[in-house]
Amino acid sequence: MSGTEEASGRGGPIAHGGDLDAAQALFPHGELPWIDLSTGINPVPYPCPPLEASAFRRLPSRADLNALCAAAAHAYGVADPARVAAAPGTQILIETLPRLRPHSRVAVIGPTYGEHEAAWLRGGHAVTLVPDPAQAEGADVVVVVNPNNPDGRSWEASTLLDLAGRLARRGGWLVVDEAFIDLEAVESLAPRASSGLVVLRSFGKTYGLAGIRLGFAVAEPALALRIGAALGPWAVPGPALAIGRAALSDEAWLREAAIDRHADALRLDRLLACRGGRIVGGTCLFRTAAFDDAPSLFRRLGEAGIYVRRFEANPHWLRFGLPADKGEWCRLSRVLKPA
Amino acid sequence: MSGTEEASGRGGPIAHGGDLDAAQALFPHGELPWIDLSTGINPVPYPCPPLEASAFRRLPSRADLNALCAAAAHAYGVADPARVAAAPGTQILIETLPRLRPHSRVAVIGPTYGEHEAAWLRGGHAVTLVPDPAQAEGADVVVVVNPNNPDGRSWEASTLLDLAGRLARRGGWLVVDEAFIDLEAVESLAPRASSGLVVLRSFGKTYGLAGIRLGFAVAEPALALRIGAALGPWAVPGPALAIGRAALSDEAWLREAAIDRHADALRLDRLLACRGGRIVGGTCLFRTAAFDDAPSLFRRLGEAGIYVRRFEANPHWLRFGLPADKGEWCRLSRVLKPA
Repeated sequence: MSGTEEASGRGGPIAHGGDLDAAQALFPHGELPWIDLSTGINPVPYPCPPLEASAFRRLPSRADLNALCAAAAHAYGVADPARVAAAPGTQILIETLPRLRPHSRVAVIGPTYGEHEAAWLRGGHAVTLVPDPAQAEGADVVVVVNPNNPDGRSWEASTLLDLAGRLARRGGWLVVDEAFIDLEAVESLAPRASSGLVVLRSFGKTYGLAGIRLGFAVAEPALALRIGAALGPWAVPGPALAIGRAALSDEAWLREAAIDRHADALRLDRLLACRGGRIVGGTCLFRTAAFDDAPSLFRRLGEAGIYVRRFEANPHWLRFGLPADKGEWCRLSRVLKPA
Repeated sequence: MSGTEEASGRGGPIAHGGDLDAAQALFPHGELPWIDLSTGINPVPYPCPPLEASAFRRLPSRADLNALCAAAAHAYGVADPARVAAAPGTQILIETLPRLRPHSRVAVIGPTYGEHEAAWLRGGHAVTLVPDPAQAEGADVVVVVNPNNPDGRSWEASTLLDLAGRLARRGGWLVVDEAFIDLEAVESLAPRASSGLVVLRSFGKTYGLAGIRLGFAVAEPALALRIGAALGPWAVPGPALAIGRAALSDEAWLREAAIDRHADALRLDRLLACRGGRIVGGTCLFRTAAFDDAPSLFRRLGEAGIYVRRFEANPHWLRFGLPADKGEWCRLSRVLKPA
């Protein structure tokens, strides 16, 4: 199944934020340095501990992987670390899950992060995009991003658990991608992962360290084991093992980050609203707003060296990540001053 | 296909070197610190350049990935960087290739590195282990490790190119894993990669940086693209992109490393021969020798805090990696003194 190529135009390359080469090509005379607000990555990263040379030199050990999974289990409220599979980024987990099932009917709740639909299509499954879990009847697999990217929609735990229960009874899965949940007041289902409920958690966005590539799947132990086996030995690099373990054990940093980023998100909403934006939603790492003049605002921002995310399917929407410091806030607010 | 579980006892977990937790469990009273000679990783690593914070923070960019692939293409003598796919370690490439083919008859030339057979089995293919490429008739896919691990056998380029040509004519592949070729006088087929010939190159062993996870597939451009797509975006972590690009561009370091490690390998051969070892072969990053008393020598080494690789299928063989410094050479030569 998964050996087949993309079955259609769907499943091809997805546009993503974070590509400053694209920004440079669009706006060759944009003000430098670029302010990259096109992602939802925390602009104030976790202060990495100094890394031992062995993190770079030695093959990552099973003991280090186990210690990372234990730290993740504790951070995510998962009683049994055997339910946690670690990967070099959530993306590769999104690619892996479709390979672990026979041909299935898959409903992705969207619009949402494009790689879910693309990965299930690449895996040879039948994929539909539906706006709500209530409309996913008949699917073997339902994928929901909670809270959703880019609009910040979220679903009640009870709704999702009911759905997971129904899917489990016929051998299906509910896949809940909680990439942006760490700093939100949304209930995580990671502690409830079970047969039929797979939860994905991302490390790099919350901790501002997207370059190290680290993500987790939380599932029943047998499936967590299959996911780990599909990735093969030494899948998580030594630097990610060391940094992830330290950061996931630092609850105080996470609490402070949540407070700081919430304040930033409120401040950003005020700026966007003053400029005529209608806040669609988001999380405290990104805000999506609708503008009547979104294309021209995108251009003005780009010319000022500020790269934000636009959406082909929603030309009025722009998504803004958080500025990193006073200088970036000032540059942004100059462009967003009321028209 | 690739969704199926292991079909038999084959395809299960493979024993690997580098697992000092296993060493500690076997020899709880072994002399500390451990000298890990159980892998073929260069004990004198490439001196990493200082990493910019952005390597950890930002999503790896397409431009950085392209620059890495260009550096790899140049280092490996490949004219077109579009033939190079980069991955977080060769292991994940070994896992990926079986997913890109329909059900095939696969011949692995062995005994060799166990993950090839296991990965093709996991992918649902029919796998046989044959001692020589000449006995791979009838296979759609032939996998050869050149030079071979653990015995150092190597094959003439012309033999392998003939085989690749025959396989290509019927839509098959020759997969040549050149994990240990960098420092050897064995001709690489990377510059000849074409339809029917896929070459794997490893970074971490030669450069002593196995923890960063970096490996490459060299193939015809369309297949290189499919491999890259199967890994998804941002597969190679930021630190590996930066370190790999610098190291692969440093030809002088590689030349010096080859001279130094060849001298080490000769010195190790002399020690092993004096202790009664019959040199089976190897590369200049590891040496395999047969001993009449291999099990008791393995135990004596372990008690002295020196962990080497043994082989269930060949109980007389022991494989030795290279000591890192004078102190390690002295500890090794004390245990290997003529009986």
